[in-house]
Amino acid sequence: MEDKRNNEFPESYPMTGGVGAYSYVQNSKYQRGYVEAAKEVIKEAIVKKFDINCLSAPLNSIFVADLGCSTGPNTFLAVQNIVDAIEHKYQLSEDRDEIPEFQVFFNDHASNDFNTLFKSFPPKRKYLAAGVPGSFYGRLFPKASIHIFHSSNSLNWLSRVPKEITDKTSRAWNKGRIHYTNAPKDVVEAYSTQYAMDMESFLIARGEELVVGGLMALLIASVPDVILSSDFTICTELELLESCLMDMEKVGLISEANLDSINLPLYFPSPKELMAAFERNRRFSIEGIQELGIQDKQLNLQSLTLTLRAGLGGVLEKHFGNNIIDEVFDRFSKKLATTPTLLNLNENQKTSLLFVLLKCKPND
Amino acid sequence: MEDKRNNEFPESYPMTGGVGAYSYVQNSKYQRGYVEAAKEVIKEAIVKKFDINCLSAPLNSIFVADLGCSTGPNTFLAVQNIVDAIEHKYQLSEDRDEIPEFQVFFNDHASNDFNTLFKSFPPKRKYLAAGVPGSFYGRLFPKASIHIFHSSNSLNWLSRVPKEITDKTSRAWNKGRIHYTNAPKDVVEAYSTQYAMDMESFLIARGEELVVGGLMALLIASVPDVILSSDFTICTELELLESCLMDMEKVGLISEANLDSINLPLYFPSPKELMAAFERNRRFSIEGIQELGIQDKQLNLQSLTLTLRAGLGGVLEKHFGNNIIDEVFDRFSKKLATTPTLLNLNENQKTSLLFVLLKCKPND
Repeated sequence: MEDKRNNEFPESYPMTGGVGAYSYVQNSKYQRGYVEAAKEVIKEAIVKKFDINCLSAPLNSIFVADLGCSTGPNTFLAVQNIVDAIEHKYQLSEDRDEIPEFQVFFNDHASNDFNTLFKSFPPKRKYLAAGVPGSFYGRLFPKASIHIFHSSNSLNWLSRVPKEITDKTSRAWNKGRIHYTNAPKDVVEAYSTQYAMDMESFLIARGEELVVGGLMALLIASVPDVILSSDFTICTELELLESCLMDMEKVGLISEANLDSINLPLYFPSPKELMAAFERNRRFSIEGIQELGIQDKQLNLQSLTLTLRAGLGGVLEKHFGNNIIDEVFDRFSKKLATTPTLLNLNENQKTSLLFVLLKCKPND
Repeated sequence: MEDKRNNEFPESYPMTGGVGAYSYVQNSKYQRGYVEAAKEVIKEAIVKKFDINCLSAPLNSIFVADLGCSTGPNTFLAVQNIVDAIEHKYQLSEDRDEIPEFQVFFNDHASNDFNTLFKSFPPKRKYLAAGVPGSFYGRLFPKASIHIFHSSNSLNWLSRVPKEITDKTSRAWNKGRIHYTNAPKDVVEAYSTQYAMDMESFLIARGEELVVGGLMALLIASVPDVILSSDFTICTELELLESCLMDMEKVGLISEANLDSINLPLYFPSPKELMAAFERNRRFSIEGIQELGIQDKQLNLQSLTLTLRAGLGGVLEKHFGNNIIDEVFDRFSKKLATTPTLLNLNENQKTSLLFVLLKCKPND
């Protein structure tokens, strides 16, 4: 199987850039919960599973990459935790007293706001830092050049909206919806097929780039393996957002054609689907998998609205133009206020955070 | 000697970002002349002097870095030329048939417009690409991790304005001038001392980062070794710019204190000064040094003004605020029109482009 260059994946869906009121920088506390939930688990995994001997002897530096880093600050917490864990591992080992240098690569789409990211690098960081623009569904790094990959909350973004669901002649045409939530089987299948293809591309690329013995720590929002079809409510917020857009279509603020053609490139796999993808690829051994509890899932009305806007505002703006975005999220916030139980994500959201640890095996 | 982290050099003087009428992207044809003048010389130097055996056997990738890359497009020409030269070298060699992968690092200050740079990466490039924000006067890369460094037209920027020249109590106070052109000896010495310190920091950092046998190709605007003191007119444009600012001070558009405190952090060393810096450092062998001729130095009035504005507009804006910049360059352009011989840089500019090739020696 040929691996792909990252520029073969031209679509991108960056978080809102800058440091303003609607930016991801200001509105990523929810995603910070993901990073914090995983902190100890990743630390322990690295101390237990990272093989110091996978370093190239003459080089003796450790190369870490965070895939889908956005504009910070969560990415800095995540990589600092990894660096601390490896340092701790060196301190525990007897025969290695010199702690190596670290180079950390921050990856996201070229349309991500790297200027903001670079200006907010922690001044006293213990690593050398670089930014790597491009889609992680293609190749980003030279062969066998990375020791640890990390990705939090990013592998739920598809490389693109599945083709069929915007094709009026297809059985999978997703008319009147913005996602596969509550959609017919053909739509759901188009999404899951796209996810399987994307994960294949992802694993082929990372299998080339990781050193043998290198680790990959992935945090992926996931749905249970067994769910009733009547119960396919993975994202209550997306349903609410969809209903706001439909209301706007009804009063003529959005055209029907424009509503029919918007689809969010988000997918929430089940653990079974993920396992199947890893097993098909065969380059990685599964060293650990577990569901993580997120403390304090309770968000308030404003922060949930702003979090969703920082994440999806860019996609909506690209499709509808920027003059309706305020209206969309005003309506969202008002609807949310009338259904306050929605704010308790513990009760209402069936997605959970899955932690997966993979290790790169030698080439067959 | 301890090497320094790049965040110990907080000052930065980026070229004008974006892709607008005053951007470096639109106004860097003059600097492109530098890259083109060096093209064949660098190609030949790499084919002759690059040691394929300096690659780490298990890695077999080649790591190239351009220091002071700005926003493009010149940096892309420069690195493509290097990649082509190494590929050519591999094609000539008998025992190596597999051409390695390339990773190219584009470095500039964190305040550089990396968003514009990343969006303009050549789509069909033959290398994997990363951006490295930070001052090249400090450490940017892990030890022994780079095979070829390149820098064009960037090592004329000091890490900072020399302290003494903004100190009213110092003999080197540079009252009424924006540079060391036509300045007393103490001012010139403060600049040359700063340059020597900066070059020392630069060479210590690069000596750590280059692999043994790795190359460094530097293009530096330079003045002749022997110049008459009455003839110390290295930058006619800077004198003209200075006179515009003085005129504006006279009519009250700029305060005297504000004019006295602006100084451009630019220095043009002589070959002798550079040689002395390389010899003090002792980590590099000098594999080549030559003066390059730039074809077509003739610029027109508008392009010279825009080139200078793209390069110095940011420094002036930071100091004076953005509401006088149009006026400064309007006046500059008008003055230039009354002295058209200035446009013929071949006649009027005593700086020339120096190409230096250094090779990293084993540690003592």
